[in-house]
Amino acid sequence: MTGIGFEVLARDGAARLGRLDTAHGPVQTPAFMPVGTAATVKAMTPENVAATGARILLGNTYHLMLRPGAERIAALGGLHRFMNWSHGILTDSGGFQVMSLASLRKITEEGVTFRSHFDGSRHLLTPERSVEIQRLLGADITMAFDECTPFPAEREAVEASMELSMRWAERSRSAFVERPGHGIFGIVQGGVHPDLRQRSAARLVEIGFDGYAIGGLAIGEGQATTFAMVEVSVPWLPEDRPRYLMGVGKPADLVGAVKRGVDMFDCVLPTRSGRTAQAFTREGPLNLRNARHADDPAPLDGECRCPACTGFSRAYLHHLVKSGEILASMLLTRHNLTYYADLMAALRAAIGAGRLADFSFGGAAP
Amino acid sequence: MTGIGFEVLARDGAARLGRLDTAHGPVQTPAFMPVGTAATVKAMTPENVAATGARILLGNTYHLMLRPGAERIAALGGLHRFMNWSHGILTDSGGFQVMSLASLRKITEEGVTFRSHFDGSRHLLTPERSVEIQRLLGADITMAFDECTPFPAEREAVEASMELSMRWAERSRSAFVERPGHGIFGIVQGGVHPDLRQRSAARLVEIGFDGYAIGGLAIGEGQATTFAMVEVSVPWLPEDRPRYLMGVGKPADLVGAVKRGVDMFDCVLPTRSGRTAQAFTREGPLNLRNARHADDPAPLDGECRCPACTGFSRAYLHHLVKSGEILASMLLTRHNLTYYADLMAALRAAIGAGRLADFSFGGAAP
Repeated sequence: MTGIGFEVLARDGAARLGRLDTAHGPVQTPAFMPVGTAATVKAMTPENVAATGARILLGNTYHLMLRPGAERIAALGGLHRFMNWSHGILTDSGGFQVMSLASLRKITEEGVTFRSHFDGSRHLLTPERSVEIQRLLGADITMAFDECTPFPAEREAVEASMELSMRWAERSRSAFVERPGHGIFGIVQGGVHPDLRQRSAARLVEIGFDGYAIGGLAIGEGQATTFAMVEVSVPWLPEDRPRYLMGVGKPADLVGAVKRGVDMFDCVLPTRSGRTAQAFTREGPLNLRNARHADDPAPLDGECRCPACTGFSRAYLHHLVKSGEILASMLLTRHNLTYYADLMAALRAAIGAGRLADFSFGGAAP
Repeated sequence: MTGIGFEVLARDGAARLGRLDTAHGPVQTPAFMPVGTAATVKAMTPENVAATGARILLGNTYHLMLRPGAERIAALGGLHRFMNWSHGILTDSGGFQVMSLASLRKITEEGVTFRSHFDGSRHLLTPERSVEIQRLLGADITMAFDECTPFPAEREAVEASMELSMRWAERSRSAFVERPGHGIFGIVQGGVHPDLRQRSAARLVEIGFDGYAIGGLAIGEGQATTFAMVEVSVPWLPEDRPRYLMGVGKPADLVGAVKRGVDMFDCVLPTRSGRTAQAFTREGPLNLRNARHADDPAPLDGECRCPACTGFSRAYLHHLVKSGEILASMLLTRHNLTYYADLMAALRAAIGAGRLADFSFGGAAP
């Protein structure tokens, strides 16, 4: 079970400083993974993404299987080559997007049949096919195929969904082809029910994975519940394997989850916000559409090293937003991903120094 | 009249190899100026633009006076600082955009009153105000305010319009404040009438400008007529001053105009095309939306040095276009501007070597 190397280098409370070793190089953890849905982190070149400090991206199986197609990407040399990204890639299983984007979904023990939201074409996604697609894409980290449990839902429905996901996790594990530097992660489910979370975690560990994700959260349950579910799951997961909290989150969510022992995150928030004029700064979030920025010569974030902050004023960024210019999305995305990367670097430094308890970022608690 | 330095370094027939010296550095000519309408070359960072080789941009007075406003840009340190561009900037006078974009235009001897196409607000643009705005923006090269003559039009209308533009040119010249490294260009008008073109050119030379533009072309009259109007205008213009053909054009238009003695160009074609999936290549233009590119591992242009060509396949670019990804606009704009910059560099090399007669670019006549 050493397809993906992982070493814990330091601890501070439940938090860990670590290093993930993938077929495409090392990743310092805790790490935030920018989302590159359609084989691109929106509004960024791969060179731009690497310059933020990111060393692993998330790719979306659902989108890529439909467009341009997993076999096509494989024929073109795999996702890394296709999108010209030389560092790590984690692909999700497609389970979440099938439930949130596709139509006419039908779930059976076998898998999920659905229609593409692009062109209405029919598809079947099973644990075996999901893992195969992720292999065709060339993912360094493959995610087990799971059912996205609706929220809120009755306990019985959550339990049945979790049990189905555990059977699918076992099938995903069996379908995964071991290769050095490549691994597969299982996903803890169980909604907001501690005992279901624990049962799910224990079952995954029994199957045995390279890493463990905590899924089905950050979908409306609130930060306190998210943290509570992390707290009930983490003790059941192996100390020597990475932990990944899926779809999280805001800066304060990341800090809280790191303190509770999470090593990896992904979220569309920094990239999507960058395309809607929202910037994360050490002074808190800013909406660049606001007229109060129109004459402001100050940079977005005076402590930030990114080109948006070193080269331009808030007044200019406001102007770009008001003018609907593509450069607004480019610069704000670059800034937000830099902010997230630097926040993670600061968290790693704090863990290394044993000072996570009084962590701050730019003088403020994120 | 040496606000803007210009030196002719070599000649080949009517073509000239030269160097323009602006307050923001030298520009090798013949030069193509990317268009940065709203204080940004769309889908490009200034760093990206400079990497293509461009050393002078065009900014649009009409857009910038309305949004964010010339006085605002001046208060923020000028257009160079506002948009973080350290090389040359030429601003147009606003005359062309007022006629093509604004509503409720009323032209008098004084100037043009109009309503903004952004918010309907009323404005007056005169030669004096246009020159003042361009000074507020900090343009290295200011363009005289002229009337955009409609095409096609009766000869009498064209003549009256040209005469008005010449009176405005004189007022523009008078309003211009001399500063080292800054200059003002007059604009030859006269539609498709050789005698009007000659009268206009002679009048401008009488007034005396730092450079001379040929305007009112590339608006539907056809390449042969464009070239003919260049040919009748150029002999009337001083040998020691730069010549600028406004709004031109396709690669073959640039080559033909350079052979006829033009030194500077601007056009939205490479940037706009980049946002609509059109690429200029040494094999001719390509439409990346076309399905025949879906599986093509070849680069856009095998001889091109730009990141779109060195990092990605036609298949990937096709995928980005089909997916509506911002990165498609970023990469194709970067490529097209690199193509234009390299075409101009090849033209300069050919003039320097005295081999313009059998000019080719990548084995093909553009």
